Amino acid sequence: MADYVFGVDVGGTTVKMGLFDISGKLLDKWEIPTRTENAGEAILPDIAASVEEKCKEKGIEKSAVAGIGIGVPGPVDSKGVVHKCANLGWGEFNVNEALSKLTGLKVKTGNDANVAALGEMWLGGGKGYDSIVMVTLGTGVGGGIILDGQILTGSMGSGGEIGHIHVQDGETEKCGCGNYGCLEEYASATGIVRLANREIAASEGEATVLKAGECSAKDVWDAVKAGDALAIRVAEKFGEYLGKGLAVIAAVVDPEAFVIGGGVSKAGDVLLPYIEKNYQPVAFHACRNVKFVLATLGNDAGIYGSAKLVLS
Amino acid sequence: MADYVFGVDVGGTTVKMGLFDISGKLLDKWEIPTRTENAGEAILPDIAASVEEKCKEKGIEKSAVAGIGIGVPGPVDSKGVVHKCANLGWGEFNVNEALSKLTGLKVKTGNDANVAALGEMWLGGGKGYDSIVMVTLGTGVGGGIILDGQILTGSMGSGGEIGHIHVQDGETEKCGCGNYGCLEEYASATGIVRLANREIAASEGEATVLKAGECSAKDVWDAVKAGDALAIRVAEKFGEYLGKGLAVIAAVVDPEAFVIGGGVSKAGDVLLPYIEKNYQPVAFHACRNVKFVLATLGNDAGIYGSAKLVLS
Repeated sequence: MADYVFGVDVGGTTVKMGLFDISGKLLDKWEIPTRTENAGEAILPDIAASVEEKCKEKGIEKSAVAGIGIGVPGPVDSKGVVHKCANLGWGEFNVNEALSKLTGLKVKTGNDANVAALGEMWLGGGKGYDSIVMVTLGTGVGGGIILDGQILTGSMGSGGEIGHIHVQDGETEKCGCGNYGCLEEYASATGIVRLANREIAASEGEATVLKAGECSAKDVWDAVKAGDALAIRVAEKFGEYLGKGLAVIAAVVDPEAFVIGGGVSKAGDVLLPYIEKNYQPVAFHACRNVKFVLATLGNDAGIYGSAKLVLS
Repeated sequence: MADYVFGVDVGGTTVKMGLFDISGKLLDKWEIPTRTENAGEAILPDIAASVEEKCKEKGIEKSAVAGIGIGVPGPVDSKGVVHKCANLGWGEFNVNEALSKLTGLKVKTGNDANVAALGEMWLGGGKGYDSIVMVTLGTGVGGGIILDGQILTGSMGSGGEIGHIHVQDGETEKCGCGNYGCLEEYASATGIVRLANREIAASEGEATVLKAGECSAKDVWDAVKAGDALAIRVAEKFGEYLGKGLAVIAAVVDPEAFVIGGGVSKAGDVLLPYIEKNYQPVAFHACRNVKFVLATLGNDAGIYGSAKLVLS
């Protein structure tokens, strides 16, 4: 009978690691550097060594460990095969098998955004729901879809790539993905800054606390909270893009809740009405009772979700 | 060891029924009327009686029947509970249990659009794929999503309601669902007629074989095939709405293929280039290799998919 589980979240610079009991209580949390040199060949051995060490430190027998869950930045198929993790230097191989061989433990691998969604559903903002769409508003817009408790991986590992749904014709600035007019260009932190700079340029002479070319997404939301009229118009545009986008997603996968996370979500509850009021008028009638909640696990969502991957 | 399976597709006026061997070979096909009076209380007993009769006629023992799959017009949860089938007069009850009690056979129930998608994936246009989005272009636009061989039901049974994704701001005509600017308003048979009438009105005096207020969707596609310039512009608009809409859906669920069915799809291969050329420029890069294929089972997709529901 297993008592413990490891959750691992591999990023481009650090690997976040967590030791949990099987109820999901985080017992310990630490980080190791991500050594990406030589095609990232040291990453899994480093993780294996760190797991061994932690077991020794805590006096935990391997037989008491349910396994290791691991989230990685790139597409992962249902068998644990990564096809390319550019940030890690990895090519194509089976992570489940490789890390299992190194540790003697059961390993389950998932895409980091999907795994974070699973974490939020398990013990974060989406707790109590079985089917959620996690929307991560950071430098970009990421997504993770969980339906009936299972990650929606997609045939190419691109399920939940909601930052790249097309929401605007005629956009002239290119998205990081190479297309024009993706949701990410308006709803990410950089997207909000883009909207703010455009609004400032279009409203020359209007009094606002926001400075062209110098404001951050946080500045915009602080200004919204302070009642700045121009910032509020930016929030309206953000909400229109995101609310309409989420209404489309709802008609496709019909979740119980949208969980809003990422750096932008630190602005807090002020975000949600801008999203919801633009969602409702275009949402399919059966999807109008969907809940909008904020993520609560922050940067720990990945280790929680990885751990849950093993326990699911 | 079961040799046979029944597939049943319940519509508002007739119930289509099929007897299959478990490889999916259709052995017999027939219809019975849908008796919707008295809250549709006779519908399941009629189906049970028809199954009994067919077994007797063919000399099939019940022990040789894997079960009955049944597709119904309305949301169905994963346990077989229908919440309301307006066209049948049904309220809320468990169809699996009710029909199983009447027949002594295993019963599996699904939404008719989802079940048709499963049929097309099994032995129709989507054969060979595990993950498809079926797009039914009929009077409305229906959808069914199959991922890794499983129907995406959605938390409220509204998964795959792709006809009601919002694709156009500022629309003044109302969709059947009560919203404005749904995909269905432009890509269904009635939507194509709407686009044609608008194009005719906007192009007064231009030579075209299409007559304002009198053309059908079939007339439009026939005119496209004949090289009618106005009809070709209508096809471009249809393709723009549908292609862009499907690109959004691809970034959410990442299917291997889109299977295009319904009455409009009888126009044939002429449809696909209009969809694909509008899909590609806005599709997420990992979703650009998705295949576009035509459905092949026509009105039999429902009985095939219902049968498959039992065998999955």
